[in-house]
Amino acid sequence: MRMALENIKVLDLTRVLAGPYATMVLADLGADIIKIEMPEIGDDSRQFGPHVEGESAYFMSLNRNKRSMTLNLKTAKGREILLQMIKEVDVVVENFRPGTMEKLGLGYEVLRDVNPKLVYAVASGFGHTGPYRKRAAYDAIVQAMGGLMSITGHPGREPTRVGTSIGDITAGLFTAIGILTALMNRNESGMGQKVDVAMLDCQVAILENAIARHVVTGEIPGLGGNRHPAIVPFETFQTSDGEIMIAAGNDILWAKLCIAMEQPRLIADERFKTNPLRNQYYEELKPVINGVIQLKTTKQWQEILDDAGVPNGPINRIDEVLADPQVQAREMIVEVAHPVAGKLKMPGIPIKLSDTAGQIRRPSPMLGQHTEEILKELLKYDEAQIEDLKEQSIF
Amino acid sequence: MRMALENIKVLDLTRVLAGPYATMVLADLGADIIKIEMPEIGDDSRQFGPHVEGESAYFMSLNRNKRSMTLNLKTAKGREILLQMIKEVDVVVENFRPGTMEKLGLGYEVLRDVNPKLVYAVASGFGHTGPYRKRAAYDAIVQAMGGLMSITGHPGREPTRVGTSIGDITAGLFTAIGILTALMNRNESGMGQKVDVAMLDCQVAILENAIARHVVTGEIPGLGGNRHPAIVPFETFQTSDGEIMIAAGNDILWAKLCIAMEQPRLIADERFKTNPLRNQYYEELKPVINGVIQLKTTKQWQEILDDAGVPNGPINRIDEVLADPQVQAREMIVEVAHPVAGKLKMPGIPIKLSDTAGQIRRPSPMLGQHTEEILKELLKYDEAQIEDLKEQSIF
Repeated sequence: MRMALENIKVLDLTRVLAGPYATMVLADLGADIIKIEMPEIGDDSRQFGPHVEGESAYFMSLNRNKRSMTLNLKTAKGREILLQMIKEVDVVVENFRPGTMEKLGLGYEVLRDVNPKLVYAVASGFGHTGPYRKRAAYDAIVQAMGGLMSITGHPGREPTRVGTSIGDITAGLFTAIGILTALMNRNESGMGQKVDVAMLDCQVAILENAIARHVVTGEIPGLGGNRHPAIVPFETFQTSDGEIMIAAGNDILWAKLCIAMEQPRLIADERFKTNPLRNQYYEELKPVINGVIQLKTTKQWQEILDDAGVPNGPINRIDEVLADPQVQAREMIVEVAHPVAGKLKMPGIPIKLSDTAGQIRRPSPMLGQHTEEILKELLKYDEAQIEDLKEQSIF
Repeated sequence: MRMALENIKVLDLTRVLAGPYATMVLADLGADIIKIEMPEIGDDSRQFGPHVEGESAYFMSLNRNKRSMTLNLKTAKGREILLQMIKEVDVVVENFRPGTMEKLGLGYEVLRDVNPKLVYAVASGFGHTGPYRKRAAYDAIVQAMGGLMSITGHPGREPTRVGTSIGDITAGLFTAIGILTALMNRNESGMGQKVDVAMLDCQVAILENAIARHVVTGEIPGLGGNRHPAIVPFETFQTSDGEIMIAAGNDILWAKLCIAMEQPRLIADERFKTNPLRNQYYEELKPVINGVIQLKTTKQWQEILDDAGVPNGPINRIDEVLADPQVQAREMIVEVAHPVAGKLKMPGIPIKLSDTAGQIRRPSPMLGQHTEEILKELLKYDEAQIEDLKEQSIF
């Protein structure tokens, strides 16, 4: 079956997370991703544990649907081959520290001269402009500097890092959007361009209403805990065996919750009639709800509230996420067979296209697995030429 | 100047966050977003505080670059007009509870028959398939059910909600990617399709290495606090006046950090020579670093570590993010003038395109501000026809 991006060729110089996440998203929807890796070393994340039969589970999760070619860009011949490949692809993506490509003689201007239709995308910590442009960053640094940590956590406690590398991942998503947008533009203009995405910028872009609240009220948003800043009840409650998230987003859902809790008198209670009132009398309302919710298990409340149409959910651990019937029905956990590591479960494809569905067509590549295949296919090299390169340790 | 998506017309039926975030990203890059709102009521988020001169700062932050048209889809004439508009646009996006469009007689099959080139995108809580497909969800529910809360927070404490609505926002980003991908495909096939994105699916997709770690080791990832799960030192440290995030991601950075701390003897210390050793002797290393870092202010350490090339950053509050020189240099805080509310600061555009840069061309619209303009432009209605619709309260 046709895939949406199957005619898009991407030269992928990225390592670790932000860049590889962007190219994984494109790969899942059909793009041909040629991952260029340093001979013998490869993507740093090949070293990240845990390993299965010597293969990094981290790397395998992020590099499915890609082919790997080794190429030593520190050699003149390696750079020459890269420039030849640039002519044959639609997109190049890198997430080096800014300046690295220029030092190699492979900066954007050079590549654009070789292929004016090229889309050149870069995901870096702070971007290619501005006073911090030469600095390296990691996810934790941009989570800290971008303000997200200052609003994540429980009141009176410390700022908290999000448990997944959301700084890298959002940069990967914005980079994928930038690449597709530049390709759309190229369909009309015939010209490529540079896409410059910074992890710090993306952190600012996802702050949602925190900036609006601050600039309008002058207050500095603090640690919000698990409670919604403006809606009551909309937070976690203790059950007899754990916790449950309950979100009664409006007065109708509040009434449904009261009935589900077998507390119909609360609907008529003047203190709790509207959301502004429930905010005002929060300190009186919270213990009333606590008192009821703590009497049953999380599972019992889930059934009661689902039947009543009140949005709710358990705080699932990772093993519970994998077992969730909806997650399974949506194929959001897939099992990919790797020739060395065997079968590995990983997240599925969250973009469900009705006519050109994404597919997981191949496991993550072994280092340099496709070098010869790509040299023949893309550059029409013959066996003798390949043998020659091999002897020179170019790949 | 040309913008990349300026020839793309989007009929935007979305409300609140996930959908409007997706269409804002497209709008910022040039797409013409026609926001359809219920007469007199409009997008629910117009009611979300804080307000400036009666205008919601939340709504204004998410709906710049869009036009607003009111249309009562509960009337036959309103639905007829929507179907006429469907013929003239490239994309329709909605984030209603699944089934709502079908009840209105505006389900995907109906719209596709009217315009086979249409890309129909939907962002919902649980998606349009699977056992939970009829349920409503809010951000907090999918953060809980998707596993992210179970790995966010400090060890021994409670699971923690991310302080921004990352469930909505990642769904918005994946929806934007899905729309652009379907448009890319349409350029070749001539046909539109349906894009079905679920907030819960997106939470699973961003779990990064948590799933790999679990399936390989059998351990259930828990609350990780602010410490990197595998790299030392890579966490927050107390300074004399606050905290600082320090990320010494490899042995070279570790050596640089030791010198910056004026503790060169640590480089030679056998216990701390490699990252695996620093993990093993973490409990001995942490107090040593603590003892040094607490002697100077955050700002002093920033300067010292920046000079030494050690990735670091302060844990900025929202007001500090707005004042950051890099954030300012990258135009990641922009000021948009609204005709009623005046100037409002909001996040800028994180996708920097070299040749077709995104622009903020207009503030968020007043409810129904562009109804007549759009009826004339898109459907060629004349004044008499518009007057007639107005009398029937269709808009």
